[in-house]
Amino acid sequence: MSELKNDRYLRALLRQPVDVTPVWMMRQAGRYLPEYKATRAEAGDFMALCRNADLACEVTLQPLRRFPLDAAILFSDILTVPDAMGLGLWFEQGEGPRFARPIQHRRDVEQLPIPDPEQELGYVMNAVRAIRQRLQGAVPLIGFSGSPWTLATYMVEGGSSKAFNKIKQMLYAEPETLHLLLDKLADSVVLYLNGQIRAGAQAVMLFDTWGGALTGADYREFSLHYMHKIVDGLLREQEGRRVPVTLFTKGGGQWLEAMAATGCDALGLDWSTDIADARRRVGDKVALQGNMDPSVLYGSPARIEREVATILDAFGPGEGHVFNLGHGIHQEVPPAHAGHFVAAVHRLSPSYHR
Amino acid sequence: MSELKNDRYLRALLRQPVDVTPVWMMRQAGRYLPEYKATRAEAGDFMALCRNADLACEVTLQPLRRFPLDAAILFSDILTVPDAMGLGLWFEQGEGPRFARPIQHRRDVEQLPIPDPEQELGYVMNAVRAIRQRLQGAVPLIGFSGSPWTLATYMVEGGSSKAFNKIKQMLYAEPETLHLLLDKLADSVVLYLNGQIRAGAQAVMLFDTWGGALTGADYREFSLHYMHKIVDGLLREQEGRRVPVTLFTKGGGQWLEAMAATGCDALGLDWSTDIADARRRVGDKVALQGNMDPSVLYGSPARIEREVATILDAFGPGEGHVFNLGHGIHQEVPPAHAGHFVAAVHRLSPSYHR
Repeated sequence: MSELKNDRYLRALLRQPVDVTPVWMMRQAGRYLPEYKATRAEAGDFMALCRNADLACEVTLQPLRRFPLDAAILFSDILTVPDAMGLGLWFEQGEGPRFARPIQHRRDVEQLPIPDPEQELGYVMNAVRAIRQRLQGAVPLIGFSGSPWTLATYMVEGGSSKAFNKIKQMLYAEPETLHLLLDKLADSVVLYLNGQIRAGAQAVMLFDTWGGALTGADYREFSLHYMHKIVDGLLREQEGRRVPVTLFTKGGGQWLEAMAATGCDALGLDWSTDIADARRRVGDKVALQGNMDPSVLYGSPARIEREVATILDAFGPGEGHVFNLGHGIHQEVPPAHAGHFVAAVHRLSPSYHR
Repeated sequence: MSELKNDRYLRALLRQPVDVTPVWMMRQAGRYLPEYKATRAEAGDFMALCRNADLACEVTLQPLRRFPLDAAILFSDILTVPDAMGLGLWFEQGEGPRFARPIQHRRDVEQLPIPDPEQELGYVMNAVRAIRQRLQGAVPLIGFSGSPWTLATYMVEGGSSKAFNKIKQMLYAEPETLHLLLDKLADSVVLYLNGQIRAGAQAVMLFDTWGGALTGADYREFSLHYMHKIVDGLLREQEGRRVPVTLFTKGGGQWLEAMAATGCDALGLDWSTDIADARRRVGDKVALQGNMDPSVLYGSPARIEREVATILDAFGPGEGHVFNLGHGIHQEVPPAHAGHFVAAVHRLSPSYHR
């Protein structure tokens, strides 16, 4: 493997000194880029794009050609694991993900297989290998997975949900069935992420998009417990270097202490949490990634720069900050505004790293 | 007006001694009740039900005939105010609220009138008067409004939204237009709630359903600032008794201190916040209302009782707790489960009030 030329992202996650604050954007390979739309049209549909290692590699690299980002993230979907378990993932036009065979009964859970990452998920591993090769050590490659709780919400609801009626019904009326499902998902995610790490991912991130829909006690029992199990099962060193793990629970700002106690290296923050408060609470244990509202990118370059300055100042001097948006970049954002954002982080941050 | 026979709810909001913890449910008059569905079918559609004082009164009283609830809440919608401003509210089958004439430009905001509560919103005032008369002092009547920020999201988006793209675009690219809108809404809500209080509402609640979509700084500037303005403008005494004000920001668990500093009497909590933490943080300033996950009502009577016990214990002994769900009751909940919930609060709470 090529030597890593820019390791700011990995160093910041381990709270080691850097010259400037590293920056990347969730969903940086996405629909706000015309070249992404063109490649996606070429692939046919979203899952065809994920399944084609060459095209998945191409869209992963597209934002890096435009902006001096400090990390690449594997182009894929969080629902590849349940799809590999046989649930039949498809995307309805304008409606988001759907499963042909959602989980309805305990026996559905009992029959779920644990996918082999090099078999049913081999297309993801191939994409990771292709991207690492094409990156030639320019920046590190981030692998990722959905959290067990978040995957389970889609598997039980059959797709996206607002009120989570079905899975909450399971949680309160049949909790042991849900635990069995989450346990199988945790085992599957450990294999999946370790597969990505062996294939070349240099850091991994767990996306817990829907943990914030739970009470604090339920979050610890049904989401965090399984993320903790995953952290415990991950390869933490590869190619002679530590592989940092980032946990991100959207809406989890009240539970940062418990998240930091899992042994992860970093926490992703959505924009509802003040990063200064977060650093006071858990900055001695973990690095922090975030946390600009992606909608700020609708503002003028001056407005974007002002928000970047505010967040840099809130985190303050010293190590342990990876700049990012608090959620994925919106598809309506002009690419030039994303460029202003990335440039502002690099231009305004050196004084915090002396 | 008849003398109030059960004033636990009002007393608890003012942190005065009570015999048992008072309890009511957000959306207690709603689709989980077959008698509600029958009355709504009689009315024709949802807004026709809101506009008919007799039928709105009837559905307000329905849950009180089933359960020994400690408060009634006016049956209405949070979007009556923007409708009265001329935006043309309608409900699309299964899609939620829609406005025929959403706010698009600054001149739309400039032209918005401030509705007269006894004119354009006279049907709400008539419903309040009818309910007070029919209640005959059994329990207090709660009036309510949406918060300016929450109303503005629907007015600018044209209906419900997941990502709030249009209003966030306004917030970051044209903040002074948004401030003008929020200011007009705050003035309108003061008149509207004071109208409800004069018509007989004995407490009022501000629902900020979408404040949690903001950053902390934006929440203070674009949502809390205008709720504070409303609190300052409200009649705080009527019929010789204090009229308590409750603020509820869904997803606002990180901002309770700032909310409590507005001079309101109580804060509503969603289920993501631990009520023990909330009491430690702001219990010396305000009462707390909440905060059971409404999905717990999918569980068995034993499971429901266990959760009620956990929340009573978390709040602990002493005054200042109004039991409620952390959000509206789901329409799929069996009415008997709501009955178990209300009974459990009354049965398990006396030991906390000695």
